[in-house]
Amino acid sequence: MFRAIDFIERKRDDGEHAERDLRAFVTAVRDEDIPDYQTAAWLMAVYFNGLCERELRAFTEALATSGDVVSLPPGKTAVDKHSTGGVGDKTTLIVAPLVASCGLNVAKLSGRGLGFTGGTVDKLESIPGMNVHLATEDFARQVDEIGIAISGHSMALAPAEGKFYALRDVTGTVPSLPLIASSIVSKKIAGGADAFVFDVKCGTGAFMQTPDDAHALARALVDLSASLGRRSSCVISDMSQPLGEWVGNAVEVLEAIQVLSGKGPADTRELSLALAAEMLLIGGVAEDYEAAHGLAKRKLDSGEALEKFASVVRMQGGDPTVCYEPERVLQAASRKKTITAPTRGYVGSLDARAVGNAIKALGGGRTRKDDVVDLAVGVRIFKKIGDSVSEGEAVAEIYYNNDSQLAAAELYFQEAYTFADTAEPRRLILDRVC
Amino acid sequence: MFRAIDFIERKRDDGEHAERDLRAFVTAVRDEDIPDYQTAAWLMAVYFNGLCERELRAFTEALATSGDVVSLPPGKTAVDKHSTGGVGDKTTLIVAPLVASCGLNVAKLSGRGLGFTGGTVDKLESIPGMNVHLATEDFARQVDEIGIAISGHSMALAPAEGKFYALRDVTGTVPSLPLIASSIVSKKIAGGADAFVFDVKCGTGAFMQTPDDAHALARALVDLSASLGRRSSCVISDMSQPLGEWVGNAVEVLEAIQVLSGKGPADTRELSLALAAEMLLIGGVAEDYEAAHGLAKRKLDSGEALEKFASVVRMQGGDPTVCYEPERVLQAASRKKTITAPTRGYVGSLDARAVGNAIKALGGGRTRKDDVVDLAVGVRIFKKIGDSVSEGEAVAEIYYNNDSQLAAAELYFQEAYTFADTAEPRRLILDRVC
Repeated sequence: MFRAIDFIERKRDDGEHAERDLRAFVTAVRDEDIPDYQTAAWLMAVYFNGLCERELRAFTEALATSGDVVSLPPGKTAVDKHSTGGVGDKTTLIVAPLVASCGLNVAKLSGRGLGFTGGTVDKLESIPGMNVHLATEDFARQVDEIGIAISGHSMALAPAEGKFYALRDVTGTVPSLPLIASSIVSKKIAGGADAFVFDVKCGTGAFMQTPDDAHALARALVDLSASLGRRSSCVISDMSQPLGEWVGNAVEVLEAIQVLSGKGPADTRELSLALAAEMLLIGGVAEDYEAAHGLAKRKLDSGEALEKFASVVRMQGGDPTVCYEPERVLQAASRKKTITAPTRGYVGSLDARAVGNAIKALGGGRTRKDDVVDLAVGVRIFKKIGDSVSEGEAVAEIYYNNDSQLAAAELYFQEAYTFADTAEPRRLILDRVC
Repeated sequence: MFRAIDFIERKRDDGEHAERDLRAFVTAVRDEDIPDYQTAAWLMAVYFNGLCERELRAFTEALATSGDVVSLPPGKTAVDKHSTGGVGDKTTLIVAPLVASCGLNVAKLSGRGLGFTGGTVDKLESIPGMNVHLATEDFARQVDEIGIAISGHSMALAPAEGKFYALRDVTGTVPSLPLIASSIVSKKIAGGADAFVFDVKCGTGAFMQTPDDAHALARALVDLSASLGRRSSCVISDMSQPLGEWVGNAVEVLEAIQVLSGKGPADTRELSLALAAEMLLIGGVAEDYEAAHGLAKRKLDSGEALEKFASVVRMQGGDPTVCYEPERVLQAASRKKTITAPTRGYVGSLDARAVGNAIKALGGGRTRKDDVVDLAVGVRIFKKIGDSVSEGEAVAEIYYNNDSQLAAAELYFQEAYTFADTAEPRRLILDRVC
């Protein structure tokens, strides 16, 4: 019989849990058969003593199968993608239809934004009529019909993971490598895909602040996926400054459509192509990275990826006009304020976290899960790290709806930019782990 | 403002808490303004990262002052005594009146038995009419009037400590040195005494199983008391076998009265005199240990200590006849069963924990806090470690009221005794820390 106190003491004393105990524990947490204070004590013990490879696999599997598991159509490989969260990261909106247009099935489950990071679900909701809450069966059916579906993560998938996550958030046990890895991978597995590509962000605007930490998480994600029979690879990308030109919700859809049209900022395009290439490679569509990258580039420039995005939008109830006349369809903030360089020189830093917090101050992000988001507000970035500026030149614009929110956002911008006599551009893609 | 999540993360990251944060935390726990899962996470972080001297002092003080603090009569030094819990340990019943008969005030707060250990409160309740739940003011008044009071620990004293303890018990965070030390010392301070003597038990029948662990706890208790301006000293005594001849509740009162009458088993008398000498020394009644020990011995042999016990019993509503004709007043079990040696030789071990569990099986102890105790049952020990036995000789007797309980107790006795060709008697008093 499973006894919570013995289970806690075992981890406290750095022992190894039996698989059946981990399963019983996860079930008990899901069913609320164990008081939160015991789960909290175990989580803190794991923070200190970790989980070995065998425990991590069994724990992740128990989380993944604690509720529904999406059953995707057999025969065709389905891939999913996960980003650890950043500022201005709209790559999912580009990569998912791009990869689907190359012939792979894409079953993409996304989250909402929280804290200083944005979420794909919020961004997609700025498209009028778009339904981003598909039932498990509808999600699978759409993947079968058009090769792609993008949906918010349903509570019916990996419900135990949601309970653990909520408790970690209030008990100081978020930054634990095995708990982070199991949280991410369990949800991906419940989503039904055969292979995953992870984008681990690294820098001030990311959870992982150093290359070492990012590398450790990347390794953990790929190894854990492999131990559960899933192919995966991981890109480590820079998040010391926001990705691309626009940060917000509707404005990021705008930028995504520009990239899907073969245009848009170079960095957003670069990361999107890299992630797409990884997905094509692990999905078995291309023989090597070069071929995969070339295929993705052709589909982007031919407009086929944009057409695939239009079909997702249409299928999920949204207005596909967004793909051709985005400014006519998307909400926009009523006013804008220009931020200028106080001196000539080069942009030395552009703190992604400060920009994310500015968006939150404008009403475009969330402090708590039930906050309502203003999808229209945003920030446009003209100057990035390494760019030269002259005194008084516009470096960014804030798009806002409310004066006091603007004032709060401007406070963040006072610290977001620093200028220097010389500065090098940042490298965007830092590493690949597979 | 106190934020629980920051507080938890600080300890998790091995930082030092500010005094005001520790006070705010203890108040929040007492008032149930913080969810148990956050307290549990902090307790586990303390299990791993500990508390430094400064934190331990502030935390203990906050616990001690979280409710009423007994205000004892000024002028005369009041001493208290605490045992970490053992089997057959009736020394409080002897030492408290003995020290009071030497002219010190004794303000003794006691606990109930739990698990395999007995409690002074239960033992005293076997004296008909005896009230062991004195209100804080009555407790202080009685100390003023007759120089001694013995009472169960009121929930009005150090109430926050009670909440922490209950949570530690179910989250695997009992065995943490700073948490144990702060729990013990905070309750002693709330009890109002100026000086404390600790009896740290060491061995199979104690929480501390090794001399090193016992020594570390003794050191922690004495240092923590000093940091809070209280004199104290500590005796480390053997608990690998039960103390004395009798184990139970009424039967331990019987043995205490024998010792108070200048008779009784040598080991119970030895430890009682040692503890009394420590109390007299830190209470400033004697100049050195020899003088203190000599004074205690005279008061025991003269019958003055017994008279003081009679006055406590009378004052707290009990029948003082117990002091002169204990067998007439105390309940006794209806039947007895003799345990015999299966072979000739020497007693090699006599597991105190097994004997404690046998008492519990007889109904004389508690598994849960609200269990009702059969005060009449008990065990009489004839042969202790190092004693010679002949085949078939009686080594112990079980006093019971119920056949199925006897059967359960006998199972424990099958493993309680081992016999050997040679065996040395155990040393009772292992060390002194001051």
